[in-house]
Amino acid sequence: MLYLTGSTLFLFSIYPMANSSKKIKEIGEDLLIKRITKNLTLGKDVMAGAGDDCAVIKSNDPQSYMLLKIDSVIEGIHYVKSTPPSAVGYKALSRAISDIAAMGGTPKHAMIGLSLRPNCNVSYVTSLYNGLSKASSPYNISIVGGETTNCSKNGTQSVTISLTGEVRKDLCCFRSKGRSGQSLFVTGKLGKSINGRHLSFTPRIEEAQWLTRNFKIRAMMDLSDGLASDLPRLAKSSNCGYSIDTNKIPRARGASIDEALCDGEDYELLFAISSKDCNKLKASWRKKFPNLTLTRIGKLSPKGTEDPDLEGGWQHF
Amino acid sequence: MLYLTGSTLFLFSIYPMANSSKKIKEIGEDLLIKRITKNLTLGKDVMAGAGDDCAVIKSNDPQSYMLLKIDSVIEGIHYVKSTPPSAVGYKALSRAISDIAAMGGTPKHAMIGLSLRPNCNVSYVTSLYNGLSKASSPYNISIVGGETTNCSKNGTQSVTISLTGEVRKDLCCFRSKGRSGQSLFVTGKLGKSINGRHLSFTPRIEEAQWLTRNFKIRAMMDLSDGLASDLPRLAKSSNCGYSIDTNKIPRARGASIDEALCDGEDYELLFAISSKDCNKLKASWRKKFPNLTLTRIGKLSPKGTEDPDLEGGWQHF
Repeated sequence: MLYLTGSTLFLFSIYPMANSSKKIKEIGEDLLIKRITKNLTLGKDVMAGAGDDCAVIKSNDPQSYMLLKIDSVIEGIHYVKSTPPSAVGYKALSRAISDIAAMGGTPKHAMIGLSLRPNCNVSYVTSLYNGLSKASSPYNISIVGGETTNCSKNGTQSVTISLTGEVRKDLCCFRSKGRSGQSLFVTGKLGKSINGRHLSFTPRIEEAQWLTRNFKIRAMMDLSDGLASDLPRLAKSSNCGYSIDTNKIPRARGASIDEALCDGEDYELLFAISSKDCNKLKASWRKKFPNLTLTRIGKLSPKGTEDPDLEGGWQHF
Repeated sequence: MLYLTGSTLFLFSIYPMANSSKKIKEIGEDLLIKRITKNLTLGKDVMAGAGDDCAVIKSNDPQSYMLLKIDSVIEGIHYVKSTPPSAVGYKALSRAISDIAAMGGTPKHAMIGLSLRPNCNVSYVTSLYNGLSKASSPYNISIVGGETTNCSKNGTQSVTISLTGEVRKDLCCFRSKGRSGQSLFVTGKLGKSINGRHLSFTPRIEEAQWLTRNFKIRAMMDLSDGLASDLPRLAKSSNCGYSIDTNKIPRARGASIDEALCDGEDYELLFAISSKDCNKLKASWRKKFPNLTLTRIGKLSPKGTEDPDLEGGWQHF
């Protein structure tokens, strides 16, 4: 992910002054984004472009925004050659759905771009579509188009998803809407997703919609690159710091604190909520989602007070 | 292109009974589409899914449809390694814009998926975005998001475009709306696009919108794979045959009839119009677009009367 930071694929070490003869793996993501976007003009209907889980667009409906997302899974990075194609399809679409969830939205229409080797079996493609169908069905997402391209005989296969969504304007969550003093929560348990969860997770659509409809939650994101990468992003977007107790981070079975912070691909929700609503939220959540943990991990704080100063997260290069 | 046939990348010879152990390059595109789409459920808001230039979706605005398109350009197929990156970006987005034009629509928001080798220069990416910007500017398209993925050191680079658009319901063009007896027209001149036009063409947005607003035109497509591929598609979608005079096909300088039929990447418009409107159309067009030819090449006829029975077009495998 280049400049929608929801699921960053290029996470480079950052040089303050990159020049054009640098390789993309050598310069920082932030600088690359800056260069790419500086000459682009956005229409007045664009409420959020680069930098959130989805792009947010004013629609013809005065009550709602349109959400737009593009996201890819790559062989060798997000799955391996031996991963069943149905799992690849399921994961590819579910990742994009998770980003729609992070805005408080409802997914609507998907288009699928496949990059395949020419000797790929027909059965691989049909199984992959079975996986896409499994991911789309619970949300009545219509798969309305697709494209398959030849990545060459020895090339790397990939699945690119373009997904639209919609969200009620007053319920749309942005990373930038957190405020110092708000409590930070995460759903579920983090770390060790490589053991299988990264292929079979359930996007938190239902939970996100329940949260935004029942509580005043305006800052949210999904955890794709690991809390150690993603929390600082949310805090920075909101012009805040943060203070968390790493011992409180909910860990998947067998995961260390470090793995819970850095493994990535959790696809859980991270959100901020007024601290006075914490107790009510916890009680209501237990009743509504008895099988999914909800954990207060800390709070947003004034800018410059990042405690601990997190590093790490999912590095692709 | 797998099942939006606007810019087909997999054009295989067609076997009537392909089985799953076949490679994708061995079975027909139509059969592959059939297999992939048979288990997919489309919402009632989907007016057109697979099989037209764009997907057409009912929006919250009762007057207009939303258009959705995904399209890729691939190194070695749509451009070569030495193609200037600004031309690659321009071409990639312009192809998708051309598909919006073919529906009579207005392009709105784009997302960009780049697949790049990790040793790619930053300057390559910024130049590519300059090309995207050059393509988007005339139409005030907002580039609202993007993703860059690593195609591996020796992989094939590509640019995938996801583009939205909108179109007035009563002006939306479908491939299926042609009627036997209607005259067939093409804009511009065909063939030899490889000489440079495929990198520098102007999508026919202005012409398409003028056509649909001033004449009753409901069947239209853009010519991406060559008239020999694309005309039979339009005719088949409309449940028609066709009768054309191949000598009348407008040819680019130096192009043979065969090249005009089969080279592809013309990005001109092919449309059907009531034959009684032909003279008025020709006169108005000359006045409005004096520098772009408009040619009547024949007509739609009853199904089964394809004359000549065209074969060929852009074959990627």
